[in-house]
Amino acid sequence: MTTSKAPVLALSGGVGGAKLAAGLASVLPPERLQIVANTGDDFEHLGLYIAPDLDSVMYALAGINDRARGWGVANESWNFLETLTRLNGANWFQLGDRDLAVHVQRSELLRQGLSLSETSQNLCEALGIKHSLFPMSNDRVCTMVDTEQGELEFQEYFVARQCEPKVHGFRFEGQASATPLPAYYSSLTANTYQAVIVCPSNPFVSVDPILGLANVRQVLGSLQVPVAAVSPIVGGKALKGPAAKMLQELNMPCDALGVARYYQGVISHFVIDEQDAGLAGEIESLGMQVLCMPTIMRSVSDQSQLASTLLHALTREPA
Amino acid sequence: MTTSKAPVLALSGGVGGAKLAAGLASVLPPERLQIVANTGDDFEHLGLYIAPDLDSVMYALAGINDRARGWGVANESWNFLETLTRLNGANWFQLGDRDLAVHVQRSELLRQGLSLSETSQNLCEALGIKHSLFPMSNDRVCTMVDTEQGELEFQEYFVARQCEPKVHGFRFEGQASATPLPAYYSSLTANTYQAVIVCPSNPFVSVDPILGLANVRQVLGSLQVPVAAVSPIVGGKALKGPAAKMLQELNMPCDALGVARYYQGVISHFVIDEQDAGLAGEIESLGMQVLCMPTIMRSVSDQSQLASTLLHALTREPA
Repeated sequence: MTTSKAPVLALSGGVGGAKLAAGLASVLPPERLQIVANTGDDFEHLGLYIAPDLDSVMYALAGINDRARGWGVANESWNFLETLTRLNGANWFQLGDRDLAVHVQRSELLRQGLSLSETSQNLCEALGIKHSLFPMSNDRVCTMVDTEQGELEFQEYFVARQCEPKVHGFRFEGQASATPLPAYYSSLTANTYQAVIVCPSNPFVSVDPILGLANVRQVLGSLQVPVAAVSPIVGGKALKGPAAKMLQELNMPCDALGVARYYQGVISHFVIDEQDAGLAGEIESLGMQVLCMPTIMRSVSDQSQLASTLLHALTREPA
Repeated sequence: MTTSKAPVLALSGGVGGAKLAAGLASVLPPERLQIVANTGDDFEHLGLYIAPDLDSVMYALAGINDRARGWGVANESWNFLETLTRLNGANWFQLGDRDLAVHVQRSELLRQGLSLSETSQNLCEALGIKHSLFPMSNDRVCTMVDTEQGELEFQEYFVARQCEPKVHGFRFEGQASATPLPAYYSSLTANTYQAVIVCPSNPFVSVDPILGLANVRQVLGSLQVPVAAVSPIVGGKALKGPAAKMLQELNMPCDALGVARYYQGVISHFVIDEQDAGLAGEIESLGMQVLCMPTIMRSVSDQSQLASTLLHALTREPA
């Protein structure tokens, strides 16, 4: 049972998804929005638990993300990494001095016995975030990338090898036995969300880890409320990251249509950028409604505008 | 059996001792000097193994210590700590961004199975240090401070409570079963050092942890070569740290004489500052030779000068 005051659920990966998540948080009060972040990219590095997507969304929600660099914390410095490099330490993962504090503190809280979702709540509160940000699960799921160079852990593929190896497929280690976080999963199965929004994140490595938990994909496909995905591909290119390269290597159309097909059966609405308006007909023939709007978020104001336009289209509430 | 080419052994605590250790390294070639640092102050913090005295000596040897602040690394920044504070993390121990890299890398090397002395060698090599720097032991020894407020771990006493609680005594947890590092202990028991120098460090919490390992104190007391201690107390005041306050609270003379008495039976030579020349007679009556020279090290050149003057006095070699 949904009401117009029911919350919206946003599923997000890292940077691109985080922008829309922050936009949604700027136009919806805390009780009207829940955000779930992918944790398939999480990994241990130098003894630290690192949750890149949770962090990206958290930084965006707190307004302390570095917009110019496109990832990490604003006003960052790199003296830790510079010194670590001098010490011949593992410097392939870029750890800024401020960002590092999040990893150290999250790891400390985990050692103290908090669950991942509790650490997230703790850190978000400290940063003044009022909206709910959940990890997709408190259980470990590891995204493994099957490539021409063998199977690689996600960060090894993404950072260390810079997405260079050609991709054959993906495997989400631990997913079969991982429990979706009850904080959102119970609402999802009880159908109490007003709408679900899949943020413009990589379908393969950011969204699939979430959709593949328990029966999340099937539940989304059977909901009577709008389930909308925003295309991370605009004009045939990924706004950020390897999504376009992956579509090509997996022999899928490298455009918004390819993404729409991939979400067929799960979503009711697909959001494309105005410059992809020409694909609307073909996407509609997949059995989904197409929403066409400016989707490129260069500024905080763009984020809010997209969130507002999208919510209005999905819920018929005033933008 | 010692020869004039035999190495000198220096025992050091943190900052004050590190200055003389660096001075000795500036006038002796690597094969002529071995430095042993106290590890009784080592502790675990935020999941990191931190060895403050080893680090202080290492930074001084590498010439990257912050002379103005008096501890830590030069050209330091504090963005990690600032962010950790915002996250309500444990910020009572001052962790600079560069210093943190040492703790993270040392902890990583320990997890990889290296011993503490191997991590020290690894880090020193990376920093271009040619002289040997050893932890006093690869076994954990924890300095516990018995105070009017109960027994405190050293860092709790030193940093968190800023040496405020009145001291009754000390206990070195693990010392009885700890093995002195063979790299220096075997040379010590074989009497192959040309001289031993106890750097100007706190006798109670920096030097005693080393002297109390196995029979190190007894071996030093029986050596036929010079065993010299440099007073950390000048003009009745500690140059740095709580040594003077501890002497008072333990009802010992709060001057160089008090320190000399404390080392009676262990050392053959006691080095006092020129301004304490008046104490020479009383100290000599304890059965040790007194060397009187400028001992305050304000600059790198002061460090070298003290090292040079002291070595000349002990070994009769040209300064």
